[in-house]
Amino acid sequence: MLSTPTIVLNVKTYTEAVGDHAVHIAQLMDKLASETGASLSICVQATDIWRVQQAVSLPVFAEHFDAIQPGSHTGWTLPEAVQAAGAVGTLINHSEHRLTLADIETCIKKSKELSLDHIVCTNTVSTSKAAACFSPHFIAIEPPELIGGDISVTTADPGIVSGSVDAVHNIDNQIKVLCGAGVKNGKDVAKSIELGADGVLLASGVVKAKDKEAVLRDLIAGLP
Amino acid sequence: MLSTPTIVLNVKTYTEAVGDHAVHIAQLMDKLASETGASLSICVQATDIWRVQQAVSLPVFAEHFDAIQPGSHTGWTLPEAVQAAGAVGTLINHSEHRLTLADIETCIKKSKELSLDHIVCTNTVSTSKAAACFSPHFIAIEPPELIGGDISVTTADPGIVSGSVDAVHNIDNQIKVLCGAGVKNGKDVAKSIELGADGVLLASGVVKAKDKEAVLRDLIAGLP
Amino acid sequence: MLSTPTIVLNVKTYTEAVGDHAVHIAQLMDKLASETGASLSICVQATDIWRVQQAVSLPVFAEHFDAIQPGSHTGWTLPEAVQAAGAVGTLINHSEHRLTLADIETCIKKSKELSLDHIVCTNTVSTSKAAACFSPHFIAIEPPELIGGDISVTTADPGIVSGSVDAVHNIDNQIKVLCGAGVKNGKDVAKSIELGADGVLLASGVVKAKDKEAVLRDLIAGLP
Amino acid sequence: MLSTPTIVLNVKTYTEAVGDHAVHIAQLMDKLASETGASLSICVQATDIWRVQQAVSLPVFAEHFDAIQPGSHTGWTLPEAVQAAGAVGTLINHSEHRLTLADIETCIKKSKELSLDHIVCTNTVSTSKAAACFSPHFIAIEPPELIGGDISVTTADPGIVSGSVDAVHNIDNQIKVLCGAGVKNGKDVAKSIELGADGVLLASGVVKAKDKEAVLRDLIAGLP
Repeated sequence: MLSTPTIVLNVKTYTEAVGDHAVHIAQLMDKLASETGASLSICVQATDIWRVQQAVSLPVFAEHFDAIQPGSHTGWTLPEAVQAAGAVGTLINHSEHRLTLADIETCIKKSKELSLDHIVCTNTVSTSKAAACFSPHFIAIEPPELIGGDISVTTADPGIVSGSVDAVHNIDNQIKVLCGAGVKNGKDVAKSIELGADGVLLASGVVKAKDKEAVLRDLIAGLP
Repeated sequence: MLSTPTIVLNVKTYTEAVGDHAVHIAQLMDKLASETGASLSICVQATDIWRVQQAVSLPVFAEHFDAIQPGSHTGWTLPEAVQAAGAVGTLINHSEHRLTLADIETCIKKSKELSLDHIVCTNTVSTSKAAACFSPHFIAIEPPELIGGDISVTTADPGIVSGSVDAVHNIDNQIKVLCGAGVKNGKDVAKSIELGADGVLLASGVVKAKDKEAVLRDLIAGLP
Repeated sequence: MLSTPTIVLNVKTYTEAVGDHAVHIAQLMDKLASETGASLSICVQATDIWRVQQAVSLPVFAEHFDAIQPGSHTGWTLPEAVQAAGAVGTLINHSEHRLTLADIETCIKKSKELSLDHIVCTNTVSTSKAAACFSPHFIAIEPPELIGGDISVTTADPGIVSGSVDAVHNIDNQIKVLCGAGVKNGKDVAKSIELGADGVLLASGVVKAKDKEAVLRDLIAGLP
Repeated sequence: MLSTPTIVLNVKTYTEAVGDHAVHIAQLMDKLASETGASLSICVQATDIWRVQQAVSLPVFAEHFDAIQPGSHTGWTLPEAVQAAGAVGTLINHSEHRLTLADIETCIKKSKELSLDHIVCTNTVSTSKAAACFSPHFIAIEPPELIGGDISVTTADPGIVSGSVDAVHNIDNQIKVLCGAGVKNGKDVAKSIELGADGVLLASGVVKAKDKEAVLRDLIAGLP
């Protein structure tokens, strides 16, 4: 499992993070992780997992896999293939790739069977509690109050994050919680952890930045 | 575009074709293509495209991509990412991964924009005609009469294949047609081409074979 | 089949057209159809088909049915149930409810088996041609140039509509074509028909109107 | 809310329960409910809700609604439309119509807003606990050990049902639990309730029975 506190970057399907670009971002993170000792990891497209993990010692995650068994599933993403490509974990149920409740359970079970780390994304306090019933390694909460706009973890009602963390821990206190929205800089990272989170999951703030290294260094500075 | 007549192998998500296994199958096909001059290609999972195309000079196809633009589409398959990984083409609308009519058009257009070769899979004479309206490079027909069971191209009513080929060509006679069902051996390959097809698309017959080389050599022997 | 030229209203899931409201809109259209002799029909939610068709002699259409057989499909829309509720036809592949190419064929075939009238919605010239390969009763074209904004059939390049009509008829000249976008008033109806369409399919322009009767009378006045 | 213990019948999309047939089954249940005082209810297709609820005083449920707001959602099932048609409740997340975790929460919230009764279907102990986090009125458990085959509640390990009931109540002890699999006769009904369930949800055992009245009378006899 990722050591915590941790910073997880999801590069989505941004042009700035396809192929060579994914490799370069991962190499930058790898350098910073070595230099600072921070726990960093990257979630990349299925097409890029092999290349990226070959290039770095950073933990590489898939962005998704499907709740399928090996066989006749042309064009879907097989958990075993993600692992064979070198991923050590996966996102599950990202807000851009929602799963049925039954498939969330299947994907968590499959991750455990394959010893893959896994981060289940949720959008509300109640869905966070629901996901906690499956005892995943990580839950990344995306409180609706923190999505989009100018509100960040630092400026928002602190109860939004701490309440979600508590709700998850009331179900299963072994689960690590990431703050998946409202994190833009090191102060937000520090505040997230102060409010009980074990780290953050972020995307465009890094991938779209002109000076990715500066943004990453600032985020890392927020880790305790 | 693939030179024709051609043999296209779709390895699906079979255990026998994940990761290293995909590389090995591609290397075997690469050797046979060099040796015989046959036009062979392989469709692999997104996770395996980079590795496989690095290992061979054989054309490598994706099994699918999504009708998405670069951006916030976590865990979906971006056309540009498939290309960046080294794929020279893709399957579209495989029977295990059906698309909406609108998305079929989008995927064909995107393939043309990116100069990716593409094979649209269809299940009936009418859907083959419909797909032909988008003027794709290839249509792989899977006549329902030839799916499963013991009937092959050689034993079936010849009108099943030739009728589909004619239906496609009546819409657009530049489209190449592959026979995507009922092909098990070299005789079926030869018969498919005799009936007007430009090649074959097949899967388990090779991937699940104990002696893949023997099966491939027999298939290749059926090419004119 | 609907007599042509015709005006088809799709009430979608608008609040203004749920339950009693759907009945009232249908009764208004029924009165105007009787009074003017115009060919009018209404597409309503599955929940409202029975009530509406009991209240009027106007042809009532479903907005959709699923490509399923009777059996274990809890909560999906069975073609036979739509018919048993009194619908005489259905929309297929509306832009808000896209189907796979294979399911479009299944739904058209099922409509023909059940002697249900049917209108297949398409979004481009090529998808209109593709749909025409299944020889449906009607194709409702929604040229992207006419969706949203201020452009209507009257102000747009006339080739947009006539080109789509010709493309469909080049595949099968028995198919009736409706103009499914860019129609706001009687002039647009008249222009659509002048450009080769057999009628129009519209929605919010009527359902959201304060004076629905005035809007409908104006539309009807555009019929030849 | 349905009074408990209760027997809920889901008629799915069975030919034997379309249109008039749905009305007849509901009338039979209505008669037996009046005669015996048993709490019975029926879940019917969207097309049949209005007709059925007009014909009986029995509570009528929808089989599903979509997590949509009123507006442009052609052919989808609007919660408000289900209610306007006379349904007093709905199934949510039936095994034949799985929803994303986020949509399960949306549908439960919407049911509460509209004061609609609701039964969330789940397939395992963990998904039952997860659904319980949303505090729905009812959860219908379908233990995999009881689906298909010859095993019923009476013959199975009693811990399968009682364990699921306890798991739900550990999250929220106000939630009523229905046994949604393994119930074929009155003995199974009695056993389900003895093991802690508040009733049963069943389908083909009644709908496909030649003598529906006999089957229903036997089931009712199992109620305490």
